[in-house]
Amino acid sequence: MLQFIEFLGIITFAVSGIVEARRKGMDLVGVYTVALITAFGGGTLRDLIIDRTPLFWVANQGYAILILALSFGAFLFPGLSRVSERAMLVPDALGLGLFSIAGASFALDAGTSPFIAALLGTATGVFGGVMRDVICNEIPSVFRNRYLYATAAFAGCWLYMLLIAVGLAKDPAIFSGIAGVVCLRLVALRFGLRTPGGD
Amino acid sequence: MLQFIEFLGIITFAVSGIVEARRKGMDLVGVYTVALITAFGGGTLRDLIIDRTPLFWVANQGYAILILALSFGAFLFPGLSRVSERAMLVPDALGLGLFSIAGASFALDAGTSPFIAALLGTATGVFGGVMRDVICNEIPSVFRNRYLYATAAFAGCWLYMLLIAVGLAKDPAIFSGIAGVVCLRLVALRFGLRTPGGD
Amino acid sequence: MLQFIEFLGIITFAVSGIVEARRKGMDLVGVYTVALITAFGGGTLRDLIIDRTPLFWVANQGYAILILALSFGAFLFPGLSRVSERAMLVPDALGLGLFSIAGASFALDAGTSPFIAALLGTATGVFGGVMRDVICNEIPSVFRNRYLYATAAFAGCWLYMLLIAVGLAKDPAIFSGIAGVVCLRLVALRFGLRTPGGD
Repeated sequence: MLQFIEFLGIITFAVSGIVEARRKGMDLVGVYTVALITAFGGGTLRDLIIDRTPLFWVANQGYAILILALSFGAFLFPGLSRVSERAMLVPDALGLGLFSIAGASFALDAGTSPFIAALLGTATGVFGGVMRDVICNEIPSVFRNRYLYATAAFAGCWLYMLLIAVGLAKDPAIFSGIAGVVCLRLVALRFGLRTPGGD
Repeated sequence: MLQFIEFLGIITFAVSGIVEARRKGMDLVGVYTVALITAFGGGTLRDLIIDRTPLFWVANQGYAILILALSFGAFLFPGLSRVSERAMLVPDALGLGLFSIAGASFALDAGTSPFIAALLGTATGVFGGVMRDVICNEIPSVFRNRYLYATAAFAGCWLYMLLIAVGLAKDPAIFSGIAGVVCLRLVALRFGLRTPGGD
Repeated sequence: MLQFIEFLGIITFAVSGIVEARRKGMDLVGVYTVALITAFGGGTLRDLIIDRTPLFWVANQGYAILILALSFGAFLFPGLSRVSERAMLVPDALGLGLFSIAGASFALDAGTSPFIAALLGTATGVFGGVMRDVICNEIPSVFRNRYLYATAAFAGCWLYMLLIAVGLAKDPAIFSGIAGVVCLRLVALRFGLRTPGGD
């Protein structure tokens, strides 16, 4: 189940990279690179910071090959990369939840304090998208008045750590944390909740 | 005393990130992230390059929490984030000096050659600001005809290493190096000294 | 011979950074930094990902000093930095070939699978240029319809690994891989071969 959500998260993040790179008129090399960076960027940043090796995508080449196939697909079937943003909201929320909670969990295992674990978890979830936007020469969308996104990931990380602290086993705590991120994100989208500030 | 300067440097760098992020219309998440990156970016780059773990801000969560409080403060009291650039010049020079000399010192401890230590020291001092500008979609200001800034840090690192080489103890050498950076930077501001080139 | 090609590759990449930074009106500090990042960025990314220390330019300060001299030279003799793009095509192809094949070789030594080694080899060859363009606030040129560039590097990495797999010794395999990248790149330039997509 976790495997499946991870798979889904990587695909969704890769597709969001493909869509943005196509919109910028990039060729296959650009599309593939941006897709890789969007899917792997957050986890790579986390692993570099907590000095965890080997990186997850280095250890498992299947993901990089799959994203290459997706990038080819985007050229063979250009219609497929015109996925509506709407259709990607739920898988994206799942990916955000999984990446963030897994990130916080790895950080705790590496001995960080809870606040740093919540930060690194959030970074795992959102940094791929930040790097995608920086490379595409945009101010990262997550920094500009999005309906709760990084905030949802941050809150979910705390929920996960709270459940661990009160004695819940790791697996149900991870699922609850992911569910927390997804719910918060979808409620924010539905009811227009935003982080303060932003134009 | 060193502790206090480090504290001051982190605050100043964080505030400069907050100010730039507000100017770009970012929300609380963006402001906090840019502040973290500005304050921690240089030291993180250095620690990744010399493979020093754990990172200073991972080991000490107090700094990240403090910067969160500052970011909230910038929304509660928007006037406070309109600090004049003038008022920040001296604390910024202190932060530049401390980060650079401490960076050079850590690099030497890790066994690098002097020239590389001076480069990494300078990078520790200026790279946070470079990443702040890249994320805010600006060409880094430190690359465009600033009154001696990176150059002051670079010269200060050499002064520090020279004093160590002639037998001075570490603490006075560090203070002298920091004083060298600060003086050079303030003299450059006062008398309009610039690095060659730039428009 | 490999030493000489590495030397040539670093010089060429540094010069391309100097030229772009001058075009953006940067001062000496900016020019030097962009030159360093262009020359060292790809190898640094690779070494961080496979956790290889010390970084090649940290272990050998001669390269960083040489690039400082080149950056000074660009201000003393501004004509020199107006090298025509044409004149740089062959050295650039050599640098791309050497960096990529050496990168793939280091990655294999670190135990990565072949596909990841080809990716990291390509990243070693092209990432310095990507970071140069990001810092100069451009969409990376390698992502926009260049005559085969990253693709040539990727193919050359596979050629290298194929030759190793069929039992060729390391040195001739490295030279063949580099030759493959250079030929593919020059043929692509001559006959206008591009990666699909791009505007």
